[in-house]
Amino acid sequence: MNLQPPPEQSTDPKTIASTARDAFQSLAFASAGQKNAVLLAMADRLERCRDEVTTANEADLAAARENGVAENLVKRLRFGEPKIAGRVRSLRKIAALPDPVGQTIRTERRPNGLDVARVRVPLGVVLNVFEARPHVTVNAGAFCLKAGNAAILRGGSEARQCNALLGQFWRDALSEAGLPPGAVQVVGGSHEMVHELLSLDRWIDLVIPRGGKGLVEAVARQSRIPVIKHYEGVCHVYLDEQFDLRAALDVALDSKCLMPEVCNAMETLLVSEAAAEHLPAVVEAFQREGVAVRGCPRTREAAPSVEPADDDDWRTEYLDLIVSIRVVPGVEEAIDHINRFGSHHTDVIVTGRLPAAERFTERVDSGVVLVNASTMFCDGESLGMGAEIGISTDRLHARGPMGLEELTTYKFVIRGRGHIMGPSRTK
Amino acid sequence: MNLQPPPEQSTDPKTIASTARDAFQSLAFASAGQKNAVLLAMADRLERCRDEVTTANEADLAAARENGVAENLVKRLRFGEPKIAGRVRSLRKIAALPDPVGQTIRTERRPNGLDVARVRVPLGVVLNVFEARPHVTVNAGAFCLKAGNAAILRGGSEARQCNALLGQFWRDALSEAGLPPGAVQVVGGSHEMVHELLSLDRWIDLVIPRGGKGLVEAVARQSRIPVIKHYEGVCHVYLDEQFDLRAALDVALDSKCLMPEVCNAMETLLVSEAAAEHLPAVVEAFQREGVAVRGCPRTREAAPSVEPADDDDWRTEYLDLIVSIRVVPGVEEAIDHINRFGSHHTDVIVTGRLPAAERFTERVDSGVVLVNASTMFCDGESLGMGAEIGISTDRLHARGPMGLEELTTYKFVIRGRGHIMGPSRTK
Repeated sequence: MNLQPPPEQSTDPKTIASTARDAFQSLAFASAGQKNAVLLAMADRLERCRDEVTTANEADLAAARENGVAENLVKRLRFGEPKIAGRVRSLRKIAALPDPVGQTIRTERRPNGLDVARVRVPLGVVLNVFEARPHVTVNAGAFCLKAGNAAILRGGSEARQCNALLGQFWRDALSEAGLPPGAVQVVGGSHEMVHELLSLDRWIDLVIPRGGKGLVEAVARQSRIPVIKHYEGVCHVYLDEQFDLRAALDVALDSKCLMPEVCNAMETLLVSEAAAEHLPAVVEAFQREGVAVRGCPRTREAAPSVEPADDDDWRTEYLDLIVSIRVVPGVEEAIDHINRFGSHHTDVIVTGRLPAAERFTERVDSGVVLVNASTMFCDGESLGMGAEIGISTDRLHARGPMGLEELTTYKFVIRGRGHIMGPSRTK
Repeated sequence: MNLQPPPEQSTDPKTIASTARDAFQSLAFASAGQKNAVLLAMADRLERCRDEVTTANEADLAAARENGVAENLVKRLRFGEPKIAGRVRSLRKIAALPDPVGQTIRTERRPNGLDVARVRVPLGVVLNVFEARPHVTVNAGAFCLKAGNAAILRGGSEARQCNALLGQFWRDALSEAGLPPGAVQVVGGSHEMVHELLSLDRWIDLVIPRGGKGLVEAVARQSRIPVIKHYEGVCHVYLDEQFDLRAALDVALDSKCLMPEVCNAMETLLVSEAAAEHLPAVVEAFQREGVAVRGCPRTREAAPSVEPADDDDWRTEYLDLIVSIRVVPGVEEAIDHINRFGSHHTDVIVTGRLPAAERFTERVDSGVVLVNASTMFCDGESLGMGAEIGISTDRLHARGPMGLEELTTYKFVIRGRGHIMGPSRTK
């Protein structure tokens, strides 16, 4: 088995970008059947060759540990079972989703008899820049392909061997289905190469950076191409008033503990003054789940075992079993805290008061705002998109979880019968 | 009357941008009634003070002529009657349109009982950069305001006096309605100031540059803020086969002659080899309307009075009574010509053949593609948006004519009843 990047994948930015552009010209008009054949071939290959993938991943993991890569990055780098099986299932699920391309979004007959339709079309070439998570190499490629976009996938150098192998799988699966192998390119290369890719707005239509704050900010700063940022999630649950304590604790604990490593996990719990009497029970519930609790002075007064939290805590995405707790006078101050310290990602109010729920959903400036539900539901599948490529923290084009539709654009198709606006000039 | 920029309008980029941001915080939650009151007050003021506006505009026109500004720019700079009356009507029409803010775009109850809605919210602060057209100062301000966005309007220095007056009108109209005057700021200032504004992504959410290729490209290159380009329109009408000649000529002439100065006017007529027999009649029809005709060798063979056209012509937005004509073998070559030389704006096929119409609408990569209808229908009003702020030639967020909805984004609002994703942790 050859773990080196196969010779077919260019490392020259201009070649990569123009190859993607050329591939897009075919892919944009590929049938749903052809695109799904690629996804299913990729699933089969991943399933059949999982030992090879695991071996490549183990080599990456060993190298990462040797190079002293931080343990939470090593954790994200791991791509063995059950993650491989999860991706296989996901590929088959994406293949089963309806093809967004060619869908008529709206249609209207105008009073003058013109038929006006908006028809969904692919975006073009999408450059994905992400950290060391090989599952993104599968997932982002599958989403872009299904929506008719050519994908350039640039994962972290820590995942080099595994990504090179997945890149070869993509090329093989595309070739088998009669589509250009340049439609999904997995590229390694230096930061300089990424920098150059980010200047090639002639060929690339969209950049999706996903990962730590540093990565996303650097890409957004350097890019000449439109960017949809997938930023960190500093997410909140606010316990307001008139709630059932057990249900409230369930929402808070689910938001923190189910998957602490994901961007929509809660990082800060806000508690209204009216609910402060519950602080000892709240703190105890977290501690029982193994969560380290940091708190404002008011929280520490009620639960002395809590470590102190400061302004840095309010801004921190822990991605770990740590929570910060702050007592606020009421819903207005909770909203202010979230808009000031949060990352406009996912925020929850737990309340029995309708006006508080309405105020919170109107004023919290986040992509996803929930009432009496866990932050875990900020997820493409839960929201009815079938699955998601990621969660946008930007405002333009797509906000919150992005599914297939959010990877498309539209054109107006207008049908007339010799319609003109002015008077006839032939009479 | 004071024609100097009033002292209230800052010329410091950071002050302008942060003032707009502050104003947005109120404007985003203003009622439809408050926003409409501003629009109606602006309309009344414009109607009442049209002599002042005309005087300011005359001073700008005189200065422009003195400075040797090109005649077509001078033409766009003119803002007297009937243009003022047109803006007054337009302001009242925008006031009568439904408020897009707070609209529920989609709503769904998921199988688990979660209620998932997408709710329309404003984009934020929108910076409009345009050339010397005072009517944009009215129109773009009105659209941004109605959609709940704060607007920074930077028109060309040639319109300095007229724009300063319109800026004062906006401030007065906003103050009267109890909204912050910083919600619509008309700013002058140097290119350096624009350059600095384009770096202030902390406060500004979107830039809409509109005007010549040079202006739009410079803004896109310099901006750290997302840009939706309103580019030139190199628009085409393609005469295919099996059409009624008189109807075809009507579409072609309407597309060229009704408003030759607008971006969706036709610049190039493509004629299929099968329809080349009609060239003498086509050329004559244009010449009868006073249109100068340039053509490919095949066209000149059929109509010797035609001047020669070259590749530069195919790329040129004349914005004038000039048309270039090229004969192409058939629909495939017409599509290739349009995708290669056009500006992805507005393109038409005139045909009686359904497969040709389908191929053309699928393959022409433009924001608006029409069958048997004039390019003039690429217009927000014709397409059912009520009116338009402009025509995007970009792919992301909005494509083609942009109305109020295209100046908004959305948030997910999810309502549960204690929903959690994992098992309960309180039992």
